[in-house]
Amino acid sequence: MLLLNLDHVALAVHDLDEALARFRGLYGAAPEWREVVEEQGVEEAMLLVGGSKLQLLAPLGPDTPVGRFLARRGEGLHHLAFAVPDLDAALAHLAAEGAELIDRHPRRGGAGRRIAFVHPRSFGGTLTELVEIA
Amino acid sequence: MLLLNLDHVALAVHDLDEALARFRGLYGAAPEWREVVEEQGVEEAMLLVGGSKLQLLAPLGPDTPVGRFLARRGEGLHHLAFAVPDLDAALAHLAAEGAELIDRHPRRGGAGRRIAFVHPRSFGGTLTELVEIA
Repeated sequence: MLLLNLDHVALAVHDLDEALARFRGLYGAAPEWREVVEEQGVEEAMLLVGGSKLQLLAPLGPDTPVGRFLARRGEGLHHLAFAVPDLDAALAHLAAEGAELIDRHPRRGGAGRRIAFVHPRSFGGTLTELVEIA
Repeated sequence: MLLLNLDHVALAVHDLDEALARFRGLYGAAPEWREVVEEQGVEEAMLLVGGSKLQLLAPLGPDTPVGRFLARRGEGLHHLAFAVPDLDAALAHLAAEGAELIDRHPRRGGAGRRIAFVHPRSFGGTLTELVEIA
């Protein structure tokens, strides 16, 4: 098995404060951490739901990847993220199998983790992030 | 906390055999079970990815909820499902907080579990299923 586990589910939202208030009121879910990631043009918050992580992504402006996603699709699932034990091996395997990779080589994601994105066409229509878990 | 855990992530796919072959080749993921659910108009397969469950839903015909979803949106996330300890209490709380519920009362889902759906407007833009875990 290439994938270890679902690491998190990420939802794009217009307004992070409003979304956090909604999730707190409806589901009693509070953020574990909250962080502006300038290079990705987002402010993100991670909610812990039992053993599962739900990430809320709000754009820093309209001309960012998440801003354009919201203009095109509205709020909703932005990506799924799966943990992998060895990201280089995973990417080599996927490339050999003909998968469409957005990142052919690992890059740095939040919390300094090594990540890469797989195209929705190679994961049942959803943008998918692979996160290396040391 | 109202929610216990993410129970599964469900993707709508056009062709279940083709999708299963793709997930097996790319990710080494094989289905734990596979089942036709006539009353929902789907054939579903559940893949175990580490401790996470990924459900693939293929429509039994174009005039079914998943068939119409595919015609409108294409392949991709269909719903998120979260486990709850007490579904009646969860629905009463959500109704009192003004959430939009698709099912105001529990109904039977796969494997005989009690489930209810919450409207995407009350969960960050994604259709959300609550599954009672006994």
